Amino acid sequence: MKKLNPAYLIRKNIKKLTPYHAKEVPYKIKLDANESPFPLKISDFISEIEVPLNRYPDPEAIKLRKALAKKLKLSYEKILVGNGSDELIYYLILTFGGPILYPVPTFAMYGIIAQAVGVKRIESKLDRNFDIREETIINLIKKQKPRLIFISSPNNPTGNSFSAEKILKIIDTASKNSSVVILDEAYQPFCSERGFLPFLEDFDNLAILRTLSKIGLAGLRVGYLIGNETLLSEVNKVRLPYNVDSLTQYIATEALNKFYAPIKNFITEIVKERKNMQRELSRLKGLKVFPSEANFILFNVKDSKKIHNKLKKEGILIRDMSSVIKDCLRVTIGTRDENKEFLRVLNKILGE
Amino acid sequence: MKKLNPAYLIRKNIKKLTPYHAKEVPYKIKLDANESPFPLKISDFISEIEVPLNRYPDPEAIKLRKALAKKLKLSYEKILVGNGSDELIYYLILTFGGPILYPVPTFAMYGIIAQAVGVKRIESKLDRNFDIREETIINLIKKQKPRLIFISSPNNPTGNSFSAEKILKIIDTASKNSSVVILDEAYQPFCSERGFLPFLEDFDNLAILRTLSKIGLAGLRVGYLIGNETLLSEVNKVRLPYNVDSLTQYIATEALNKFYAPIKNFITEIVKERKNMQRELSRLKGLKVFPSEANFILFNVKDSKKIHNKLKKEGILIRDMSSVIKDCLRVTIGTRDENKEFLRVLNKILGE
Repeated sequence: MKKLNPAYLIRKNIKKLTPYHAKEVPYKIKLDANESPFPLKISDFISEIEVPLNRYPDPEAIKLRKALAKKLKLSYEKILVGNGSDELIYYLILTFGGPILYPVPTFAMYGIIAQAVGVKRIESKLDRNFDIREETIINLIKKQKPRLIFISSPNNPTGNSFSAEKILKIIDTASKNSSVVILDEAYQPFCSERGFLPFLEDFDNLAILRTLSKIGLAGLRVGYLIGNETLLSEVNKVRLPYNVDSLTQYIATEALNKFYAPIKNFITEIVKERKNMQRELSRLKGLKVFPSEANFILFNVKDSKKIHNKLKKEGILIRDMSSVIKDCLRVTIGTRDENKEFLRVLNKILGE
Repeated sequence: MKKLNPAYLIRKNIKKLTPYHAKEVPYKIKLDANESPFPLKISDFISEIEVPLNRYPDPEAIKLRKALAKKLKLSYEKILVGNGSDELIYYLILTFGGPILYPVPTFAMYGIIAQAVGVKRIESKLDRNFDIREETIINLIKKQKPRLIFISSPNNPTGNSFSAEKILKIIDTASKNSSVVILDEAYQPFCSERGFLPFLEDFDNLAILRTLSKIGLAGLRVGYLIGNETLLSEVNKVRLPYNVDSLTQYIATEALNKFYAPIKNFITEIVKERKNMQRELSRLKGLKVFPSEANFILFNVKDSKKIHNKLKKEGILIRDMSSVIKDCLRVTIGTRDENKEFLRVLNKILGE
């Protein structure tokens, strides 16, 4: 009987990774995870669930893909569903390999999953306005030939959407260098500009990631990749046949087909509340508030860590981003009452 | 605008993979997927689902792991849950890398996922009795130093469980050669012998895969890995934080805590029916029936492809295994009525 030495057993690229550890923190108001604040339960739109749990799920998730396709007005064959966008990012990196390129700061999972798979990461810093440095990225594409480029727009955690013109130039350069561009539009529903769906036909190397997580169904885990069938059929090769369970397929389909009006109202409400929040936050002394096209707002404040902790003590959870962007905190848009209470407590803390 | 050339864009190891394509076949009796035949719906054991869909799932799946741990009489920290065992196989190969070694024929996903990740596969043929060739495997371990060894026992699609003594010798050799052994006990609930849980403490390089898919909850997608915390914490590094959705966590937990007696009765019933089926099949002319410790039976029959198709035309789905084992078909144990009807139709076809 020999003692296990994990440092010897595991692959080298795994060594530097740390597991995700979520601590359960008691809270009154939860504005830290870019979830929808509107409680949504199955009984809100389904009276009886007739899913046979003893049978395997539909491996092609046809009904769910058709429900998504109907909303997007395209063919369901141009859609691949995943157990959250996270899983699709895994599949994309497994399919196309590395290096992978992405602007930073951005959604952490691109880098984490690249590390797990063991491919090289190329990071390009955003400029002062949190926009992408187009020339830097174009040079990186030409010189380092990334296989995959991830661009989150609107971007998390900065909240802004990148210049469409710059993105188009990047996709074009990528196209000439056999790089695939994944535009992550997780926050697109909250954005005033149109997304990149209209450009899918122009670029064979472009695919778009979307999710139901930000619009009220984070608990279900549904992400989807939209792209041409050639590209999707390659990604489909590494997909696990039963990656989306029967209940998720059923309930997401029902929500899209029968509960979409309320979901759209929630989105409208959040955009309205974001504008209020932006105005109110800007009035507070010592805050620098960044423009947002998402369901959260990033702001800079002195002693951000201390303020984050004081809010937590009052039962208000927001996200500390100071390790990524100096002195920055990220607050998810909540309900009107939650936002008011957050603003009241923040104002009180700032005055102490 | 450049045309995409997937053959150039994708990684080499992906080229040879083909996507899983499930055809929808109309059926009367479904005995092809090793599912439980007993209809199980949420309303059978849950009156109201109070899961907030707008919130992300518990990334640690604490309640579900505790419910599983209680049944196994061990600490929940020795359990990692996945979106089916499939996802855990992905994580294991990403964590430990290759080469990976497994006896064949066996569960196809070990090889498919190894190919998707791009690690070397070493296959060792089973002997005439479908038992593992212990010496061959031990030599392969010593010479080729696989990082991971997958052993499914009871084995799919052969149905038998391997000699425990042989498995123990393999684990011991693996231990001395820094190989990790994953014992896939998906079919353990139907087996007359004890599984390998009692040996977990003896070997730091051993972990066990189990699933709720075969005992009535295939639609939910819950697989779990049981092992020491050191090994699990390494695998946990590549796990997606929200890999098991809120509904699956909730419903699986409820099923384990409140519906376990019926689930156990289902298992007892299937074992009883398997014995009947084995006896009845053996009486049919021209069949060679292999012993089974699982919820399915493998049998050899002349013109297996033709018989498989004739059954399909009668609305009875079983699995054609002839591409893997010459002239073999695999039938999942159904309800008493389903099994009777299958036997009646098979008998009729054989007499034609």
